[in-house]
Amino acid sequence: MEFPSKLLEKAVDEMSQLPGVGKRTALRLMLHLLKQNPDRTTHLAEALMKMRHDIKFCKSCFTISDIDMCDICSNNHRDHQTICVVEDVRDVMALENTQLYKGVYHVLGGKISPMDGIGPSQLNITSLVEKVKAGNVKEIIFALSSTMEGDTTNFYIFKQIKDCNIITSTIARGIAVGDELEYADEVTLGRSLMYRVPFENAFKNV
Amino acid sequence: MEFPSKLLEKAVDEMSQLPGVGKRTALRLMLHLLKQNPDRTTHLAEALMKMRHDIKFCKSCFTISDIDMCDICSNNHRDHQTICVVEDVRDVMALENTQLYKGVYHVLGGKISPMDGIGPSQLNITSLVEKVKAGNVKEIIFALSSTMEGDTTNFYIFKQIKDCNIITSTIARGIAVGDELEYADEVTLGRSLMYRVPFENAFKNV
Repeated sequence: MEFPSKLLEKAVDEMSQLPGVGKRTALRLMLHLLKQNPDRTTHLAEALMKMRHDIKFCKSCFTISDIDMCDICSNNHRDHQTICVVEDVRDVMALENTQLYKGVYHVLGGKISPMDGIGPSQLNITSLVEKVKAGNVKEIIFALSSTMEGDTTNFYIFKQIKDCNIITSTIARGIAVGDELEYADEVTLGRSLMYRVPFENAFKNV
Repeated sequence: MEFPSKLLEKAVDEMSQLPGVGKRTALRLMLHLLKQNPDRTTHLAEALMKMRHDIKFCKSCFTISDIDMCDICSNNHRDHQTICVVEDVRDVMALENTQLYKGVYHVLGGKISPMDGIGPSQLNITSLVEKVKAGNVKEIIFALSSTMEGDTTNFYIFKQIKDCNIITSTIARGIAVGDELEYADEVTLGRSLMYRVPFENAFKNV
């Protein structure tokens, strides 16, 4: 693309480095900003800078937080002996949304993915194993994505903590609520059959 | 969505005000930035600010430019008596890409669209009519989108300049190069038949 302005080109270049944003999309967004009041752009740029430079990660669970210890970890009403292992803050938000979980979290910051150059050392795994070995943990719930990378990460952590005397579990795989059976893939359907639950339990807490 | 951090929430809010960017996409982009070097965010924010606050619009054709008069308008080798009327800078870039146009442009800055609250007074129409009435224009080529809004804008401008002694034309509508005939809509196909071109002309300049 030949740009009539270096300033526009630079902004489009920077914007299109974000994942899923191509040059054309970036250009469309920039033209939108140019039509708006300059304050809009100032607010956006300031919010980005503030977020990137002032944001903190909870010392205990590594979720994103404005303070050193996040609201969940510093809440005495939560069960600190139950830890749910998740990939990133979006999963924490999704699980909190269910209002069914009273334990705490441990945010890995990603999944083991050799294809993307992400090994165990780049994730918050050591600190989780240390927590378990310190002896204050009763249950670890694995809540990673049901993908090859998610399963690899699950097993990698499980191998390191399986000799500690704790309960480990993974969230249930099965037919999503509202889904038609005929459209489910066979692995999901198979698992939902293998790990069927007693009828009277199935509609609890919902 | 319940955010664990106000800084993150603010950044997601600002980002999701861009067209086509929802809250989930914005959150994904923010988490990406948080994983990158802080410099990336600084560069992006600075590029946005610089673009919005320092960019200029050409005094003559209203396209985006770093200088008061754009490269095209200040080029003596271009035909300044032929003006191509376009919606925005993307159209200028697309037409320049063909390397077939030697005239100059006039960027309206949008189309007349009562649904979006855009009337003729918000577009650079008066200045175009003045250029024509000043008498230095030989031909006006309308190159707006082939939509209701584009046609409305075409007619609005045409009505004001039709009594001036100039040539007016619109870019040809027809089957796109590489398209299969069977998938063309009937209006396009009809027009391509009505405005057929002499065979020997069809492959000129390509």
